[in-house]
Amino acid sequence: MNHSMALHTDKYQINMMYAHWKNDTHNQHTVFEAFFRKMPFGNGYAVFAGLERIIEYMEQLRFTDDDIAYLGEQEEQYDAAFLEELRNFRFNGHIDAVKEGTLVFANEPLVRVEGRVFETQLIETALLNFMNFQTLIATKASRIKRVAKHDILMEFGTRRAQEADASLWGARAAYIAGFHATSNMLAGKRFSIPTKGTHAHAWVQSFTSEHQAFESFAKALPDHVTLLVDTYDTLHSGIPNAIQIAKQLSEKGKKLQGIRLDSGDLAYLSIEARKMLDEAGLYDVRIVASNDLDEYTIADLKEQGARVDSWGVGTQLITAADQPSLGGVYKLVAREINGRLEPTIKISANPEKVTAPGKKDVYRIIHPKKQKAIADYVCLASESDVERKQKLKLFDPLHPYIHKYVDQYEAEKLLKPIYRSGQLVYDRPLLEEIRAYHEQQINLFWPEHLRKKNPEPFHVDYSTKAWQLKRDMIEMYVQEKEKLRLMRQEE
Amino acid sequence: MNHSMALHTDKYQINMMYAHWKNDTHNQHTVFEAFFRKMPFGNGYAVFAGLERIIEYMEQLRFTDDDIAYLGEQEEQYDAAFLEELRNFRFNGHIDAVKEGTLVFANEPLVRVEGRVFETQLIETALLNFMNFQTLIATKASRIKRVAKHDILMEFGTRRAQEADASLWGARAAYIAGFHATSNMLAGKRFSIPTKGTHAHAWVQSFTSEHQAFESFAKALPDHVTLLVDTYDTLHSGIPNAIQIAKQLSEKGKKLQGIRLDSGDLAYLSIEARKMLDEAGLYDVRIVASNDLDEYTIADLKEQGARVDSWGVGTQLITAADQPSLGGVYKLVAREINGRLEPTIKISANPEKVTAPGKKDVYRIIHPKKQKAIADYVCLASESDVERKQKLKLFDPLHPYIHKYVDQYEAEKLLKPIYRSGQLVYDRPLLEEIRAYHEQQINLFWPEHLRKKNPEPFHVDYSTKAWQLKRDMIEMYVQEKEKLRLMRQEE
Repeated sequence: MNHSMALHTDKYQINMMYAHWKNDTHNQHTVFEAFFRKMPFGNGYAVFAGLERIIEYMEQLRFTDDDIAYLGEQEEQYDAAFLEELRNFRFNGHIDAVKEGTLVFANEPLVRVEGRVFETQLIETALLNFMNFQTLIATKASRIKRVAKHDILMEFGTRRAQEADASLWGARAAYIAGFHATSNMLAGKRFSIPTKGTHAHAWVQSFTSEHQAFESFAKALPDHVTLLVDTYDTLHSGIPNAIQIAKQLSEKGKKLQGIRLDSGDLAYLSIEARKMLDEAGLYDVRIVASNDLDEYTIADLKEQGARVDSWGVGTQLITAADQPSLGGVYKLVAREINGRLEPTIKISANPEKVTAPGKKDVYRIIHPKKQKAIADYVCLASESDVERKQKLKLFDPLHPYIHKYVDQYEAEKLLKPIYRSGQLVYDRPLLEEIRAYHEQQINLFWPEHLRKKNPEPFHVDYSTKAWQLKRDMIEMYVQEKEKLRLMRQEE
Repeated sequence: MNHSMALHTDKYQINMMYAHWKNDTHNQHTVFEAFFRKMPFGNGYAVFAGLERIIEYMEQLRFTDDDIAYLGEQEEQYDAAFLEELRNFRFNGHIDAVKEGTLVFANEPLVRVEGRVFETQLIETALLNFMNFQTLIATKASRIKRVAKHDILMEFGTRRAQEADASLWGARAAYIAGFHATSNMLAGKRFSIPTKGTHAHAWVQSFTSEHQAFESFAKALPDHVTLLVDTYDTLHSGIPNAIQIAKQLSEKGKKLQGIRLDSGDLAYLSIEARKMLDEAGLYDVRIVASNDLDEYTIADLKEQGARVDSWGVGTQLITAADQPSLGGVYKLVAREINGRLEPTIKISANPEKVTAPGKKDVYRIIHPKKQKAIADYVCLASESDVERKQKLKLFDPLHPYIHKYVDQYEAEKLLKPIYRSGQLVYDRPLLEEIRAYHEQQINLFWPEHLRKKNPEPFHVDYSTKAWQLKRDMIEMYVQEKEKLRLMRQEE
């Protein structure tokens, strides 16, 4: 059977597509925007990722014969003509999205999808699934990167990842955020990410002695020897044996690359290991550490003087263990009414869940001399103040009295055209380019936004028009509700 | 390109395979066992899952031409003859595993792999990745099931899952543990899990009024109408509109199936909703609740008298948010030395990380009259006391003075043959059979082991021989170490 990804969606999408089709409203023009409401991990920024995967999905988005056959068996008993419509389904809409590696923030559109409701609705689930996971992992990886600074970072999480796709795309997200390598060979093959690997405890156990195990490994891979030294006793057996191997290697003109510590007190052990290696003249043998590391442990270990050159980060990164989901949502912001595109709003008793109506754009406003980002500016797509370099009023949408004006600025439109009328118009960057772009992005922000704990919030400001539209629509809704209440009282 | 799953592994596995091959030790016979050390979520049991996925992986385990080409480009510069060995790679070993749906516990073997180290090493990463994730989700789902009791449970997590595979296999794991349906259509298609879906807020927003939106939905799917009532105002707009639709439907001989609450205080709203529906004579309209639910929220809501018939559970389940990884490991327990299979141990400064040596089996010891499980009994595979119905001494391996004898018992060998010499010998059960088997398993245990908080620990006991072997090997290691220490002093 050919398991296409067209069914990687929630049933309610199919049911809504069907209900629109039955009501003949399925060609209604709609605009959806994907965004998240809360910064993950209390971080000052998130790192957008997932676009490559979204494109891969869009490029293959077709219902196969057995998808159609499966849909034909549902209890909903969809009309045969609807199933035919699905069989011929092609995405013909527009998608705009932020580039992977961009620093992004809560409450700004990251992906904008425009098209017939029949197509904009179908892709919601997959798009959120990809964006939510990869942005989450890239952000977690970026936090670790800030702490590890210039140390080598390796992604080692596959065995603890939430299934195969998570390990694959998570390795890619980590690489975007500045990791140097992954242990996952499939990620290496698919995305040309450098791969690294040493050996396991099982290697040592499968020889009579640790020394013999090390010697055999060094014989087989003399140019790539990093020895795991904690199978029996790190300081009294592992490191002394590794030092002997280093000497044997140097007699052959080869070098021991490193030792790996995978248990115990990594601060103490790495300091002792460094001493022992240095005393043996092995100044350039690197110390690799692993064992449930994250940004907090790495920061603590560094503070305690750990002499680690290279960190293998697994579980905590690949599952984003302290917050394993990003709550990205996909909301209808505009729809066609009598041939015109009109803004739409979702009201909620939860104020932060009230959506921002209207098709929007987002600009990064940059200080022209300092080349640092000042704020992100969300405006209606129909506005042209930024393009015309007009003076902008920047204000906090929650506390509008806090405001300032900027007239000298550079601006970058963050949403880039990805699809136009179903055609991919985006020149997909290489992964190395995305990684380099992410590093530039980091440099575009003041350090206070980048710190691990209690970062200074970066401002996402709304244009006066975008803000006024939301206010007006809430007001209209309140009046409508009051009218209905009075009508009920009269009854 | 054909992206086979053979490279869904860590680089160190390939490096160890290579080093074994170079040392001509790659045909060494080995036994590995997979287990976890700590119960997830503080639960009293875990639900084993992932075997079907492991079998699917094993059945397709081949290195393709482009896998080989990729490996040929590695900095390790593997010999061409090694790459040829990989090209011809076939798994010819044995695998034994617990059946999916079985209640399992810490420190007992769940999967046992036996074969040449060349093949047993390769599959470690994928096997752990599948077992860890699916066992985790099945366990989380089972916790939710215990709380929801006879209510309907629907898995709604795809958009927040950690990428596509997690949503797919997570939906299956939840179904094994007693969930009734998923929203994920691909999971429905692949595994024949019932699928359910209502509509989103966007459906309501894409019509001029909520009433019109409901009416249009009911017209399209008159037999499957569950209306989301919180887009504007649950009690004053959503539910009154839904009641009107119910009346219109009943005029056509149809029924409103349910309403869905997705925000606000679900206890209060469901109680009010039930009153309003009952007052309208709509006693059998069901109330569906969703919004970041887990076993704790559901328990609290039920305690507060929530009138919910059906729960849609998303993020918290599909990511196992409170503990997003199971720390399953895969350890070498025996290896061939001079043609004999000898036990092997990994020592650690961390006592709970010292492995249990020897190829083992695990039996579930059952009280013959009460038909309840008494303990799991881990013994060496060479022991036959259980098979011969001998009296067993059951004792806590950490506190051996706590012991008891059993002589009247039934026993089930938990590890079932899955592969023999590379051949699949397991008759794969249908998913419905696995789900029913899981329910039987739940009934096999006393309720005190099943409760959500502070469960009574179920005993995993070791046979005297298995326990003695571990003690002896630790003792041998300690003596060896002391000898080395004395030698160093003499130097």
